[in-house]
Amino acid sequence: MKQTRRGFLTGAGLAAAGVTALRSTPTAALDRRDVPGWDDEADVVVVGSGAGGISAAIEARRATADVQVLELFHIPGGSSSLSGGVCYMGGGTPLQKALGFEDTPEDMYRYLIEAGGPYAPADKIRLYCEESLGHYDWLVGNGVEYARVYSDEKELAHHAASLYHSGSERNYPYRDRVRPAPRGHVPPATNMMGGQRLMASLLASAERLGIPVRTRVACERLVTESDGTIAGVAVRENGVRRHVRARRGVVLAAGGFIHNPEMLKRHAPELYPCSGHWGRAGDLGMGIRMGMGVGANVLRMHHGFAVLPLYPPENVLKGVAVNRLGQRCIAEDAYYGAIGHEFLYNQGGRGWLIVDASCDYPGPDARVVMAALAGDITALGRALGFAPGALEATIDYYNAHAREGRDPLLGKSAAFLAPLERPPFKAYDLGVEKAFYSVHTFGGLETTLAGEVVNVWGDTIPGLYAAGRTSAGIPAAPYHASGLSIGDSTFFGRRAGAVAAARKA
Amino acid sequence: MKQTRRGFLTGAGLAAAGVTALRSTPTAALDRRDVPGWDDEADVVVVGSGAGGISAAIEARRATADVQVLELFHIPGGSSSLSGGVCYMGGGTPLQKALGFEDTPEDMYRYLIEAGGPYAPADKIRLYCEESLGHYDWLVGNGVEYARVYSDEKELAHHAASLYHSGSERNYPYRDRVRPAPRGHVPPATNMMGGQRLMASLLASAERLGIPVRTRVACERLVTESDGTIAGVAVRENGVRRHVRARRGVVLAAGGFIHNPEMLKRHAPELYPCSGHWGRAGDLGMGIRMGMGVGANVLRMHHGFAVLPLYPPENVLKGVAVNRLGQRCIAEDAYYGAIGHEFLYNQGGRGWLIVDASCDYPGPDARVVMAALAGDITALGRALGFAPGALEATIDYYNAHAREGRDPLLGKSAAFLAPLERPPFKAYDLGVEKAFYSVHTFGGLETTLAGEVVNVWGDTIPGLYAAGRTSAGIPAAPYHASGLSIGDSTFFGRRAGAVAAARKA
Repeated sequence: MKQTRRGFLTGAGLAAAGVTALRSTPTAALDRRDVPGWDDEADVVVVGSGAGGISAAIEARRATADVQVLELFHIPGGSSSLSGGVCYMGGGTPLQKALGFEDTPEDMYRYLIEAGGPYAPADKIRLYCEESLGHYDWLVGNGVEYARVYSDEKELAHHAASLYHSGSERNYPYRDRVRPAPRGHVPPATNMMGGQRLMASLLASAERLGIPVRTRVACERLVTESDGTIAGVAVRENGVRRHVRARRGVVLAAGGFIHNPEMLKRHAPELYPCSGHWGRAGDLGMGIRMGMGVGANVLRMHHGFAVLPLYPPENVLKGVAVNRLGQRCIAEDAYYGAIGHEFLYNQGGRGWLIVDASCDYPGPDARVVMAALAGDITALGRALGFAPGALEATIDYYNAHAREGRDPLLGKSAAFLAPLERPPFKAYDLGVEKAFYSVHTFGGLETTLAGEVVNVWGDTIPGLYAAGRTSAGIPAAPYHASGLSIGDSTFFGRRAGAVAAARKA
Repeated sequence: MKQTRRGFLTGAGLAAAGVTALRSTPTAALDRRDVPGWDDEADVVVVGSGAGGISAAIEARRATADVQVLELFHIPGGSSSLSGGVCYMGGGTPLQKALGFEDTPEDMYRYLIEAGGPYAPADKIRLYCEESLGHYDWLVGNGVEYARVYSDEKELAHHAASLYHSGSERNYPYRDRVRPAPRGHVPPATNMMGGQRLMASLLASAERLGIPVRTRVACERLVTESDGTIAGVAVRENGVRRHVRARRGVVLAAGGFIHNPEMLKRHAPELYPCSGHWGRAGDLGMGIRMGMGVGANVLRMHHGFAVLPLYPPENVLKGVAVNRLGQRCIAEDAYYGAIGHEFLYNQGGRGWLIVDASCDYPGPDARVVMAALAGDITALGRALGFAPGALEATIDYYNAHAREGRDPLLGKSAAFLAPLERPPFKAYDLGVEKAFYSVHTFGGLETTLAGEVVNVWGDTIPGLYAAGRTSAGIPAAPYHASGLSIGDSTFFGRRAGAVAAARKA
């Protein structure tokens, strides 16, 4: 480190000290008085065409508003169309009933609160559960199809079923506290194509309603009236700045910021080093920043969906996952989002999965990397650099109880309990630098139950709405069930669109 | 849970759904065109009179600017004057040298980076270390006094020394990686009165420079020019709204938001339930929100200083701290900010300190509550509800190595290693609902090395600066040494003031 001057207040020192205020600086938002004129207009302008934006557009149009959807990418659908397409619904949906499962809104609510951690937004979760049946009807009414097929698997990648337990409902301690029900609803498809099917249905519905979806339009700034009301959007199209008036409101539904490395490093450094930054290329945080540009509040910017997809095959969950001290810290059969969160956020991004010959991956697997191989646990622990005896103590304790079909420490399900005693023993690296973590951001603009954006003073910003991962919705870390993000996006997107359309211009 | 209607789009439904957009809404910032006129003016307006604000004011005044400090409270000094007054400095300060300690800027930098975690702002830390000697001179030049007294204790509450190891420098693994040095510099005082001494010196220096500090002035909004440049501040004084022009710049140094429960619940729910919300009453997040109102970016809003003051007495650190699974997770002799962070953020806010008769607190202690008392470890573990055998395994492993003066799992210092074998055994509750956690917020506005506030587009906002806990500075969780917050506040406060004063009006 070079030794520098002791003072920094000279002219040259100012520049050396990183002073940059003199370069040209765009404003964070535009005042309508500085906008030359409107190039286009609609009652409701929706920024983004993923699940949140299209749901908003459909409801705004049904409320008789003139709607425009502006999409940065060359095709619509957003990250939702890349997703598994799972929507978390319950309380006794027609599909749950048809497949013989009982559920109530209260059970659904209690699971989401129990598993949700301190950031779980209870008011949104309550409304979401209370109105889940109506939301199911809405999706079906917009052409989303579900098959009467249930799967008992923990992951649907290879199963064209439409209903499954998509979270930790059957895991300890939730199974003892709340009656489990399968709530992951997904259009039947293999290879994670459910999201494409879901969005194809919603986009077709929007098209039938005559909603224009304009692609390759980069929304850059919000335009405000002098009283703070949102007047429209400044966009860039074919390199030209244009201004689109929104007579009633703007719905920001432009996704999260997983593909903006500068935002990721600053706001969610735990997610930054992960190998799988999941989401469509437009997830650049533009909607979040446009909202912040008019004083909107943001919440949970450090949070994300952090999936560590150990399974399938489920057989490997008979292994034991340990932290940097060689201790178990989470039941191995937990939802893979909960496992990823635990290691990424609570264990410093380090961990290992210990297996024996009876529960190994069938072959090399790109999701995990073998870190050590040994004929006994002591040698394995030594190879991993654990304190002498630490891994042995963990495995001895685990094996003694697993033989009796019990896991008193963490309550792993009996189906995955068997002593690890058949050499060779292997350790797979669950560390963030080696394992495959699929990550997406959760942080975004604070919104009311109606999808209105809230500013830092706790007031709503007239004419501004947000949905999907541009908003801070139901998904909060630890993520505890697939389908909460799409569920939140569609459900609160609908509300944002309807409320925007109803606003007096 | 009451069953509600399936749709929500009727008129009555809108109100029931929480639609609030129709109520009157102030704007997040004011446009100068909407300000009736200026009631007062200065070159540089400083919002807040703690360590950050006063340091900024002093440097702005020395750069010949006309300066005004506006303080919400009836007396100046901010939370800094309530603090211990420790300033983390090193690299071979005169006090370090006089007391026989060697240190380099590089060692200081390496410790702060090694201990800092993924959120540590490396660029700010580097500059802070490189210029630490100059900062020491600056403080002394402004009347701050240090005594040539070193203390070997981990905490200075009862010692009128001026230099000590204020972090985890002597703890594993840092002691093996970086040569430890004592870097906590504090005006000699007992009972946490160092902060009052520090601020008395800085306030006296400001007074000698003729800087007016106006108290009972509530700063409410920033005023911007149409190009986004900051023009001044809208304040409330005796109930009357007034507007103060800032010809060159505004420095926001109004503290954090520990006393704003709504912000705390939303942004830092881990800190919300803690019993000790530390800071002066003005820590309401006003500076942060004023900055966000003009599009400033915020960072690390979930982070905080989370002190779990187990010591003094240091003797209790011979005990063993365990998590909800009965496992050790952090060396008990770590800095108390690191211990608090570990239990609050990584262990779900739950933990216990296990002691025996040889290392108990001398009497009842308000900081911790006894959760269980037993004649042997098995009975203690049962009383705490641990899995059978789990606590025994932890203590057996610990004792076996402690007898040899070693802690292979976590590297606790030999001075605190002794087997726990003298009944009765006790467990003190370290859970957030029972133990005393002293907490303060770290999140704030993103700033450059020069103290300029950065907006969400990565551009600086002309004329806007921030310092102290209104900014996202060097303090990031886990907090790893006392004195980093005051150090950051004074060091970057100086820069903000100097740079604001040098800005062309």
